[in-house]
Amino acid sequence: MKQYLSENSEKILEELFTILRVPSISADSSCKNEVNLCAEAVAKLLEKAGMDKTEVIRTAGHPVVYSEKIVDLKLPTVLVYGHYDVQPVDPLNLWETPPFEPVIRDDQIFARGASDDKGQLFIQIKSIAYMLHKDMLPCNVKFIAEGEEEVGSINLGKFLRDHKDRLAADIVLVSDTGMISLEAPSIMIGLRGLSYVEIEMTGPNRDLHSGLYGGAVANPAQVLCSIIASLIDENGKVTIPGFYDDVQELPDSLRSQLAQAPFDLELYKQKLDLREVAGEKGYSVMERVGIRPSLDVNGLWSGYIGEGAKTVLPAKAAAKVSMRLVPNQSSEKITESFIDHITAIAPKTVRLKTIVHHGGEPWCIQTDVSAYIAASQAVKEVFGKEPVPVRGGGSIPIVALFEAELGLKTILLGFGLDSDAIHSPNEHFGVSNLFKGIETVPLFYKYFAESQ
Amino acid sequence: MKQYLSENSEKILEELFTILRVPSISADSSCKNEVNLCAEAVAKLLEKAGMDKTEVIRTAGHPVVYSEKIVDLKLPTVLVYGHYDVQPVDPLNLWETPPFEPVIRDDQIFARGASDDKGQLFIQIKSIAYMLHKDMLPCNVKFIAEGEEEVGSINLGKFLRDHKDRLAADIVLVSDTGMISLEAPSIMIGLRGLSYVEIEMTGPNRDLHSGLYGGAVANPAQVLCSIIASLIDENGKVTIPGFYDDVQELPDSLRSQLAQAPFDLELYKQKLDLREVAGEKGYSVMERVGIRPSLDVNGLWSGYIGEGAKTVLPAKAAAKVSMRLVPNQSSEKITESFIDHITAIAPKTVRLKTIVHHGGEPWCIQTDVSAYIAASQAVKEVFGKEPVPVRGGGSIPIVALFEAELGLKTILLGFGLDSDAIHSPNEHFGVSNLFKGIETVPLFYKYFAESQ
Repeated sequence: MKQYLSENSEKILEELFTILRVPSISADSSCKNEVNLCAEAVAKLLEKAGMDKTEVIRTAGHPVVYSEKIVDLKLPTVLVYGHYDVQPVDPLNLWETPPFEPVIRDDQIFARGASDDKGQLFIQIKSIAYMLHKDMLPCNVKFIAEGEEEVGSINLGKFLRDHKDRLAADIVLVSDTGMISLEAPSIMIGLRGLSYVEIEMTGPNRDLHSGLYGGAVANPAQVLCSIIASLIDENGKVTIPGFYDDVQELPDSLRSQLAQAPFDLELYKQKLDLREVAGEKGYSVMERVGIRPSLDVNGLWSGYIGEGAKTVLPAKAAAKVSMRLVPNQSSEKITESFIDHITAIAPKTVRLKTIVHHGGEPWCIQTDVSAYIAASQAVKEVFGKEPVPVRGGGSIPIVALFEAELGLKTILLGFGLDSDAIHSPNEHFGVSNLFKGIETVPLFYKYFAESQ
Repeated sequence: MKQYLSENSEKILEELFTILRVPSISADSSCKNEVNLCAEAVAKLLEKAGMDKTEVIRTAGHPVVYSEKIVDLKLPTVLVYGHYDVQPVDPLNLWETPPFEPVIRDDQIFARGASDDKGQLFIQIKSIAYMLHKDMLPCNVKFIAEGEEEVGSINLGKFLRDHKDRLAADIVLVSDTGMISLEAPSIMIGLRGLSYVEIEMTGPNRDLHSGLYGGAVANPAQVLCSIIASLIDENGKVTIPGFYDDVQELPDSLRSQLAQAPFDLELYKQKLDLREVAGEKGYSVMERVGIRPSLDVNGLWSGYIGEGAKTVLPAKAAAKVSMRLVPNQSSEKITESFIDHITAIAPKTVRLKTIVHHGGEPWCIQTDVSAYIAASQAVKEVFGKEPVPVRGGGSIPIVALFEAELGLKTILLGFGLDSDAIHSPNEHFGVSNLFKGIETVPLFYKYFAESQ
């Protein structure tokens, strides 16, 4: 395997670059055509890998790429999932090289989507290509790649329901997460859910001169700031009534187990150039992102944001606010509580409008199921160390969807790193991570097939 | 006079339109050329009016247009001031017709600068043209029009110092303010000062994934919101230490006199589409903007402000904050107190940067000086009612400058209305206001000359 990879490394990277070059930003409606082109490019890679019945299936939004290889109906079936859409790229001026012109610097592939998720999706495709090339695929494979993960997989639930029979499988395999480091491999066993709401406040019916009206008319930017400021208390707790009602409190024993994952606070602060971390009192940094819910402002705007000074009392102010959820919080319930709370505390001086964006349920898996054990063995063989189980802070809403719609467990066999800068300027993915990933996945198939 | 105006109304409006068509936005560096073109256009109007020695004088920023007419050195001299630059136009999509394509609808001239200040500057030019045309100019006139009023008249102080002898006069006459209504004429006797600071908070050294970091890293947007929220207390008072120390508390007798200006709270709310007004407890709406200082957020931005949802924990958050000042607050001292306070309360989780924009001193004039009496007589003659003295909320920093640099009092003979939407989309200026202005100004010259 190692020999195959080193002999073909340039060709493999060039294949990955063909999809990294396509600006498939699902949130940006002006990129609709590029998202479609990316789906076609992924389909082409799957066909080239030797998969059958590859098709680009329309949905109400961006299409899903489907493909399969049925080796023998008696063998277990792995349903691979990935996404070919990417996050927006702004602020564009902070990118050192253009986000859709992939380059390798210091053994890192720089491009939007290099790690999240095109690079990792490609690990799955290339692993299948290798196993088919060597005629050693020990499971049947079904493969779906969606184009709406970054906008909440809005149409995936319907897709899964519509194709339930065709998607029948024994396990879902996803590479869309990270590990602690190449030296401290880990496997994600829990993910946070998401609730995402945009709030807009309107004060006066037009922008006003701040001299003529300032002091007599409530400023919606200041009203919004007061409301946002009130959402977190002095102990770092979210103040929305009922917010913590369904939060699963972990026993000390489990907290100790999770605490075994290596973590260096000074290095963490240094890498982010922070003088101090913040967060909920009584929890460690890793717990704050792994087992505790949080609330963040993702966007904020009001008034004049151009060059120089404009003396305006803005008519409107708005914010995008998202909450990360943990088991057993419900995305829908939290979204509702959030809107109820904002509505209750907004003063009569402004009018409130809320827009609900996508959400997702929190998720976790046990470490004693056969698929987890197979993944753990595969990682150990390639990385030389048994992986640590960790609970991650991000959200992959589809994991809960697979459980709900198809009744399937998911293995998150991720090869990214925290430092990959996903969702940020200069996203990158290690060339080593890519190749170690391609080494690991076939071993998962092998051990999983053996365990069935 | 009335006959002259009605016979020439179309020609007069077309002359005004020639300057309204030039996008002389002083805050926008990409409009530098247009600002220069506007100065040239104003100079052309002055030459056409019959003024002498018209020139466009360079400064370190945008130029000043100078012109004069010395009738007789024994006559008193009026120094006219106006500005030909305008505010930015965004949000552009809210304009019903393009801001630099003046049109008349419902007897209103719609264009950026129609009221502030090109329309009113034009009243002064046209009045002089009329008096020269009829050979009845009873004073000497010196005229300056600057191009940086909307960015704080940064270079005007130096200009006044450099041309002190040339600018020697008996009074400064400015049309850059409003009156209560055509039925309730008024003259501004006080203006608020300004202190304007931009604050920027930086948390992590890059935008982060809000799932991977949310809950553990302080969100600069939320830190900024908390700080802004804390700047006004529950009684509507600014919390910056020492903010009210120098505020002139008015005796009840003067408060009662000012309260005679007609004001209809329900109409005020209705025009702005507000359910409730806000502000400092213990003061009326007119007092809140006239005799009390205030603090407003003029702009606010952080993170992702595009379409859809992006799950980002922003690296930066920023706000433009301005304070309106009243006698005897000092712009410089308040700016300093503001920065000291923000610096003191910013937590260690963020790094703070402040940018000081332009400021200006508060100002007021007595109603028993001869120039005020002349202005009052002129207004009474044209509008049929003695004007009410009022203290306005806006800032015209140059008024304090004329006092400091040239030792001259200023008469603010303004013809705008509150409803002109200056600094907002769809700025407009009444055709009646324009023509009544051109009727009033020559009478001021007449009564002022007689009183000397």
